[in-house]
Amino acid sequence: MDVTFPDDLVLDEGGRIVLLVMDGLGGLPHPDSGLTELEAAATPNLDRLAAGASLGMSLPVDIGVTPGSGPGHLGLFGYDPVRYNIGRGVLSALGVGFDLRPGDVAVRLNLATLDADGNVADRRAGRPSDQENARLVGMLQEAVPRMRGAEVFFASEKEHRVVLILRGRELSPHLGDTDPQQTGVPPHRVEPLAKGAEDTAAILQDVLDAIRETLRDEPVANAVLARGIDAYEPYPGFPERFHLRARAIARYPMYRGVARLVGMEPVVVTDGEEATVAALEDGFTDYDFHFIHFKAMDSRGEDGDFAAKVAAIERVDALLPRVEALGPDVLVVTGDHSTPWSMKAHSWHPVPILIASACARPRRDAVFGEASCMVGELGTFPAAKIMSLALAHARRLSKFGA
Amino acid sequence: MDVTFPDDLVLDEGGRIVLLVMDGLGGLPHPDSGLTELEAAATPNLDRLAAGASLGMSLPVDIGVTPGSGPGHLGLFGYDPVRYNIGRGVLSALGVGFDLRPGDVAVRLNLATLDADGNVADRRAGRPSDQENARLVGMLQEAVPRMRGAEVFFASEKEHRVVLILRGRELSPHLGDTDPQQTGVPPHRVEPLAKGAEDTAAILQDVLDAIRETLRDEPVANAVLARGIDAYEPYPGFPERFHLRARAIARYPMYRGVARLVGMEPVVVTDGEEATVAALEDGFTDYDFHFIHFKAMDSRGEDGDFAAKVAAIERVDALLPRVEALGPDVLVVTGDHSTPWSMKAHSWHPVPILIASACARPRRDAVFGEASCMVGELGTFPAAKIMSLALAHARRLSKFGA
Repeated sequence: MDVTFPDDLVLDEGGRIVLLVMDGLGGLPHPDSGLTELEAAATPNLDRLAAGASLGMSLPVDIGVTPGSGPGHLGLFGYDPVRYNIGRGVLSALGVGFDLRPGDVAVRLNLATLDADGNVADRRAGRPSDQENARLVGMLQEAVPRMRGAEVFFASEKEHRVVLILRGRELSPHLGDTDPQQTGVPPHRVEPLAKGAEDTAAILQDVLDAIRETLRDEPVANAVLARGIDAYEPYPGFPERFHLRARAIARYPMYRGVARLVGMEPVVVTDGEEATVAALEDGFTDYDFHFIHFKAMDSRGEDGDFAAKVAAIERVDALLPRVEALGPDVLVVTGDHSTPWSMKAHSWHPVPILIASACARPRRDAVFGEASCMVGELGTFPAAKIMSLALAHARRLSKFGA
Repeated sequence: MDVTFPDDLVLDEGGRIVLLVMDGLGGLPHPDSGLTELEAAATPNLDRLAAGASLGMSLPVDIGVTPGSGPGHLGLFGYDPVRYNIGRGVLSALGVGFDLRPGDVAVRLNLATLDADGNVADRRAGRPSDQENARLVGMLQEAVPRMRGAEVFFASEKEHRVVLILRGRELSPHLGDTDPQQTGVPPHRVEPLAKGAEDTAAILQDVLDAIRETLRDEPVANAVLARGIDAYEPYPGFPERFHLRARAIARYPMYRGVARLVGMEPVVVTDGEEATVAALEDGFTDYDFHFIHFKAMDSRGEDGDFAAKVAAIERVDALLPRVEALGPDVLVVTGDHSTPWSMKAHSWHPVPILIASACARPRRDAVFGEASCMVGELGTFPAAKIMSLALAHARRLSKFGA
């Protein structure tokens, strides 16, 4: 499901593209109204755009497959998410700006709380502040700078999220998670998942043991849980493939990480949704392609809070006129996956998408919602084809064949 | 996206199929009405057919990819247009009936006008008459019969269009166009695009220089521009693959060329749309499959003339009863691509398709238009699968598996 047009069709010039991602946008109906979160939300700006746009449903990975955030975004960026699958550790390391080198093994750590019996009591250590996170990471870096010939690096992400990087010779990324994904049980030990991974498994286990020793007197964050272990291999670059000066505007490091992985320039946003749009406005004409990310739909969906997810959607809708005022030639609005409030989790359901441009084929009575997008001109199609359409609408693809 | 059923499912007998192609059929809405060219046209016959037909949208090459006429028609004929991509020169040579041999390199030439500084003043030399074209081609053939061991052939297409064929040993088709696609600049020199193409590039450049010398005293057509350079390799035959005695009825040589490439018998039509239908009526029962081509929708779309494209669609609609009166078992009506009036060019948008047969699954309120076809039973599907459906509706495919 990769982008399949021949590379030599891509032109050097054309329109400016904004890819606006509402994380976890797709949903499921509320039993009282029969309306999804997006359908229930008052979205006058999205509905006005939809009435003049090409609509459809984006399929993140494949029918029935629920994507993580990494595959969800790789698809949106035009990369087959199965072929280019990558662990969360690498995405987080890139997201916090760590200078990964090919072969580095990156691991996502959760700061966690173990009880007196060594069982997990809180998988997120009470969600510490970013300052507390930075203090603990400083302790760990000082206590565990190397392990058996491998260099060890720690970096703060947000709240309970930490990244661990191992750098050394012939490290293997084929290691199992230690996060048991539940409380009341002890963390798993590091298991090698492939032949030749035994040495790296032993190194990582020793690092985790040393971390436990370092944190033993902490009142809350007295351990870590490891997951998303993967090695860094550079990807074919987005700017080179699509001939686009591209940037990524996102508040959460993870999303900047995926974008950096494919060669977009990350723009750090520290405040909320207004600040995200302000970052888009700043230097807008210096880029051909802007990826802009809004997170709250996904978080409130995972909370199972219908009304809060509706409100999150409405906040993005209210900011849309500022995006439109910048005059992008192509405005794509979609999500990386669905996060239905009733499931409290990511899901496999296709995600509404609109592509607004002068070449759209709209349906006048359309609004932006699942039922309306299902009968849109784009049909249900792989997310990895969105970039083909974005380039086409921007008049950045030449004709194929005589 | 090739036809994917096993070859041994194809039966030797079954219904008669007409594939009626309205070139550039798909469109985009007029802002006043919100209706596309096809939706705005008064098409009582197509609408009556649609109400009893299977409807859908045909995707010519892939999502977001704009096809040229060659790939657009190869798809309709059941050939993956990416795998079987071919240069316009070969299509034109086949279209004018030139007896191409494997390895021949064919080049599309435009008769053109250069100014006193050698810059392109008119890429089409004022669109000369076919008689003038024939006179110039005669001059060229006499002046340049060979070049450095290669035989050189010229053939008239229409107006400013000429085909050049090089025949010799180990010729390479990997040569760049000399047509700069704009005025006010000189033609490009012939560039080799692959290793081993240097000799052929030099031969073609010498041919073009000799042409320039021959035409130097012509008042208008004093040069040529070369493009669409490709070598001829025979395709797997359409009659053999699909067990169909097949013919192609088209006024423009280009479309007969694509059909000949896959082994259909070309039927030359010199007059307009009525003559095209008359050619279909003549000897109808001698064939199992008829490809019939109408061009005007595409031309008027490229002109950007909404009303004229609407009128072109209505003229084809008015001729439909004569096609129906022949009693084909399967009548497929679609286009090779969209040519929206508002873009004045081919585009990537899927194309409405109807398949009328006794096995159709219709929607009673359906009409033939983009919005109606989008929600038809066929969905949006690759053009290269149309032949699978045509054969199935003609009861020419046996059951797969026990």
